[in-house]
Amino acid sequence: MLHTFYQDLPDATVEKLKKIKLVVLDVDGTISDGGIYLDRTDNELKKFNCKDGMGVSLLLKAGIAVALLTGRISPLTERRAKELRIPYVIQGQMEKEPALLDLIAKCGLTEDEVAVLGDDINDLPLYQHSAVAACPSDGYHYMKTIATLVLTSPGGQGAVRELSDLILMAQGLTTPEGNPTFLKERQLKLNAIGQ
Amino acid sequence: MLHTFYQDLPDATVEKLKKIKLVVLDVDGTISDGGIYLDRTDNELKKFNCKDGMGVSLLLKAGIAVALLTGRISPLTERRAKELRIPYVIQGQMEKEPALLDLIAKCGLTEDEVAVLGDDINDLPLYQHSAVAACPSDGYHYMKTIATLVLTSPGGQGAVRELSDLILMAQGLTTPEGNPTFLKERQLKLNAIGQ
Amino acid sequence: MLHTFYQDLPDATVEKLKKIKLVVLDVDGTISDGGIYLDRTDNELKKFNCKDGMGVSLLLKAGIAVALLTGRISPLTERRAKELRIPYVIQGQMEKEPALLDLIAKCGLTEDEVAVLGDDINDLPLYQHSAVAACPSDGYHYMKTIATLVLTSPGGQGAVRELSDLILMAQGLTTPEGNPTFLKERQLKLNAIGQ
Amino acid sequence: MLHTFYQDLPDATVEKLKKIKLVVLDVDGTISDGGIYLDRTDNELKKFNCKDGMGVSLLLKAGIAVALLTGRISPLTERRAKELRIPYVIQGQMEKEPALLDLIAKCGLTEDEVAVLGDDINDLPLYQHSAVAACPSDGYHYMKTIATLVLTSPGGQGAVRELSDLILMAQGLTTPEGNPTFLKERQLKLNAIGQ
Repeated sequence: MLHTFYQDLPDATVEKLKKIKLVVLDVDGTISDGGIYLDRTDNELKKFNCKDGMGVSLLLKAGIAVALLTGRISPLTERRAKELRIPYVIQGQMEKEPALLDLIAKCGLTEDEVAVLGDDINDLPLYQHSAVAACPSDGYHYMKTIATLVLTSPGGQGAVRELSDLILMAQGLTTPEGNPTFLKERQLKLNAIGQ
Repeated sequence: MLHTFYQDLPDATVEKLKKIKLVVLDVDGTISDGGIYLDRTDNELKKFNCKDGMGVSLLLKAGIAVALLTGRISPLTERRAKELRIPYVIQGQMEKEPALLDLIAKCGLTEDEVAVLGDDINDLPLYQHSAVAACPSDGYHYMKTIATLVLTSPGGQGAVRELSDLILMAQGLTTPEGNPTFLKERQLKLNAIGQ
Repeated sequence: MLHTFYQDLPDATVEKLKKIKLVVLDVDGTISDGGIYLDRTDNELKKFNCKDGMGVSLLLKAGIAVALLTGRISPLTERRAKELRIPYVIQGQMEKEPALLDLIAKCGLTEDEVAVLGDDINDLPLYQHSAVAACPSDGYHYMKTIATLVLTSPGGQGAVRELSDLILMAQGLTTPEGNPTFLKERQLKLNAIGQ
Repeated sequence: MLHTFYQDLPDATVEKLKKIKLVVLDVDGTISDGGIYLDRTDNELKKFNCKDGMGVSLLLKAGIAVALLTGRISPLTERRAKELRIPYVIQGQMEKEPALLDLIAKCGLTEDEVAVLGDDINDLPLYQHSAVAACPSDGYHYMKTIATLVLTSPGGQGAVRELSDLILMAQGLTTPEGNPTFLKERQLKLNAIGQ
């Protein structure tokens, strides 16, 4: 059992988290708060969160790949990805399953090395092809019943940071209290941009 | 009694939900969060939610009609409806009662087959002409005292999804845990767009 | 004691509410949620609420005057006032005290007939010149210690509606459950616009 | 022990707060709610709060300097600073440590006279060079474990006001109930602008 400030992780989960080399994030309701803000023109807003941005930055600093995979197409997903320097952005894929399998192959990884974060039933195919299927605390009930890991933080308000932290904690890079000791050990610096 | 993860439904409510063929949604405070975001120009924002969008998509996939009926006129209501492929959008009707009756007639239905979702006193006429009158958890107190079904989710944050799910659960299309088994049985796929 | 679904009102408060003919609302943190949404241009958003809008409409239907009185100047305050048909809008008054006294005189009223809603220390002068000084549930602590009426609803999320309802309930126009019976009695209709 | 309506302050903390002459605020997650609202163009929104604005105004009225220090660069940080008349704004500093030390020197102060408010690990250098390191209630867990002062209010929703109030209370300018008595004593008036 790994005791973290978020939650206690059973050994089996810790073992799975240790192997993760790629984190695949759905967008709406996971890295965003699930809000679709529309206006009277054709513009749209999404609300992201600076602490989740830090979670992505920490993963990338630790050498873990990050991808956004969403059924919708929105220029602001591209924009947020660029801001956070997320290397893989896959949008408008009606079928998330082949898109995920392609991505895993492209990265030269196996499903054992992949964690996904998804909040609703259109993420079911993602759950089926990853060692760690994580669900935000406000994710859809059915997804929680089948997730590997139910987070204590809601989408767009810490879920990405919690998943990121739990991976880094399992891998011994961050302390269970949240101190990212690997940054100092590896002489890495946080970018100002990318949060 | 039908035990769902949202709430337990008495048999009488289940019987009513079984017959529903049309769901009529008020906009502000039901499918939106009730916020009116104004700016310094003549623009306006409304906040919708991806999980509610999925609720609308599931109803439409199941062959249940959906309508938006609101007293206000806003281009972004039209826009959200288009995004979700909602077939009926009725705006700017000072009198909601005749508008609802017209719609029911146009669809060739009876009031027995209609569920409405409304959160405030201007929705009283809708409540009076539908078998199921549902109110979000943060709806106006008086509406809750007269509603057929008080939801556990707030407007713009799951109320539409809950109503949608409870209808599909009563009709045996979705499990009480939230698994929309009818999609696989009928070989239907979720659209990427429409959430 | 008047038992309402919001809270129980002592007789002394009910007596004060019975005489109210003018309701003066601060803007930020009372009729808005207190959020100042700025963008990269010179635009700004405020978040209002449809249930609060209904509260203003009900007051006006009942023949009670409503005013917005704010130290800031913003075109969107004017815009929200117009949408709700609020007759008095006073902006950019560094000194709220003379502005309030002018307004009361202009309306031919006395301080006995005025209720104010304010959430922070710049509203102190308003509190001192009104029979009913109401504070939202999330108002500043010191204001709550000196308010006549501490509401159970936060600013921008029901505080205006609660104050409006409590006035109408004290005046016998709305039932303690929230049914605005005076509309039917006086054959008044709710406007679609104005919420 | 100083009993305030926010929390009880140990004597050691009160002593530190008494000496504060400069308050340095991180932006995202402290004076903003941590939300990054992006749209389809290159625009961005941040949500600030009127009660936090009042906190800044009160500090400035009391002769305590205020600075914003953030790693990101955004025109709206500049804009909010201007609105609140914050004299020092330092953006885009990858390295917060030298930026803070420069600022302290420029103000002719020592670290004993500086309080900082930061919510995440990129604020660690700020914590190390200030007498009072404050963390919002929703700040990152690790920061709370090392903060001098953990606030009861979340970022963008009162954290700045609470820090401001606690300083003014420790310095005897505001009562523990929140009455800013120094304004009257020094014959100062609140500006309408600057909230």
